[in-house]
Amino acid sequence: MTEPKLTLHWLNQSRAQRVVWLLEELGLDYEIKPYKRDAEIRAPKELADVHSLGKSPVLEIEYPDGARKTVAESGHIVSFLMRNFDKNNVFKPTSEQEFDDVEYYSLMSEGTLQPALSFIVVLRRGGEKAPWAMKSVIRTYNDKVMEAFNFPETLKCFDLLEKRLVEKSKVSTELYIAGERLSSADILLSFPVVEQVVFGDKLGSAFNKEEYPQLVTWAKQIRARPAYIRAQEKTKKFG
Amino acid sequence: MTEPKLTLHWLNQSRAQRVVWLLEELGLDYEIKPYKRDAEIRAPKELADVHSLGKSPVLEIEYPDGARKTVAESGHIVSFLMRNFDKNNVFKPTSEQEFDDVEYYSLMSEGTLQPALSFIVVLRRGGEKAPWAMKSVIRTYNDKVMEAFNFPETLKCFDLLEKRLVEKSKVSTELYIAGERLSSADILLSFPVVEQVVFGDKLGSAFNKEEYPQLVTWAKQIRARPAYIRAQEKTKKFG
Repeated sequence: MTEPKLTLHWLNQSRAQRVVWLLEELGLDYEIKPYKRDAEIRAPKELADVHSLGKSPVLEIEYPDGARKTVAESGHIVSFLMRNFDKNNVFKPTSEQEFDDVEYYSLMSEGTLQPALSFIVVLRRGGEKAPWAMKSVIRTYNDKVMEAFNFPETLKCFDLLEKRLVEKSKVSTELYIAGERLSSADILLSFPVVEQVVFGDKLGSAFNKEEYPQLVTWAKQIRARPAYIRAQEKTKKFG
Repeated sequence: MTEPKLTLHWLNQSRAQRVVWLLEELGLDYEIKPYKRDAEIRAPKELADVHSLGKSPVLEIEYPDGARKTVAESGHIVSFLMRNFDKNNVFKPTSEQEFDDVEYYSLMSEGTLQPALSFIVVLRRGGEKAPWAMKSVIRTYNDKVMEAFNFPETLKCFDLLEKRLVEKSKVSTELYIAGERLSSADILLSFPVVEQVVFGDKLGSAFNKEEYPQLVTWAKQIRARPAYIRAQEKTKKFG
């Protein structure tokens, strides 16, 4: 073994898919260890044996000398892979401004957009589990919380992204969030924006595709990338 | 003007306090533009004029040549300041492992711990605003959501941090989360861990100080730092 061995602990319908995409963009060899969400739509307990927070993605690296490293947290995994396995510098920012933009949008994805979206799942699940007699009250309450918090917080991020892409569309038909090429900003935003909202139903009728034409174009371009398609193909069998 | 002019848009009871602390640790000159939460405990509308997401902290930089830059998102502001204004390299990681640890714990703070904690505020506010006749049902529901999601997600992070600090306490009485000195991990975790939980009441009785002795020691050490105390002094008058 001359190269480090990469194993990705992958969970269905999770943020892990982005790491498969990045591994494909980098042209790396890797193994996928698949996990399935339980009846409660939670990560299974076995994931806690891999990393104590019990979440996915987690990347394990086994080096040729036998040393092992466990890397968790999406943003950190993406950054770690780019720092250590981007032999052709396809992800290396070419200016300080590009570095700043990549970092801002990557952190905005993980620290602002994703949390507001994730909690919608928690609330909807709570609504489903509420006793029959209280379901109506709970659902009305959930809707109010989402209307007051989750939807506006999420849509403010979407407005910001659309505005940025409108500017970028004036100089190029190839759309990227941060610089002039693919970056961790596109990769990290692909799960919440592309999969959960533009092609998913996470915001329901609160999201109107017609108001976000450039974001939809960017989402379609991402879904058409050969590496993205390969990533989907490779994980399809795991459900 | 020979140095860039730094202005921090600061909101009471927000993540912005950490940036004041970092500015003090770096020994920089800066101005604070204070904002106050409205009756709904939300950021006031004027913050949206500074940055479209309408949140705090936001850092504005005016360069000697008149160029201006607006930097948002806590993790990015902290990283930006360390990259551009750490003249004595007091925050520069000294090894790859230290870099990785700093990045992991910084992102864990913003992407995992902080979101689970923040939503407690949203739920509690929702409970207060519920119509009188439904208050009891809503409060029971909120408690169940917090018990099923927010508390365990948060405590898993706290367990991980305590375990790490227990290891570190075996080799040093000065405790830091990532490496052997202060890093963005300590700075970013100071708001959720030190202020919101250890010395705050965000987890209520779900958090038992006695189970987290090293985390409490670390929190006390942070609060005793001269730069941290100066930061508190400087913002006290803004409420």
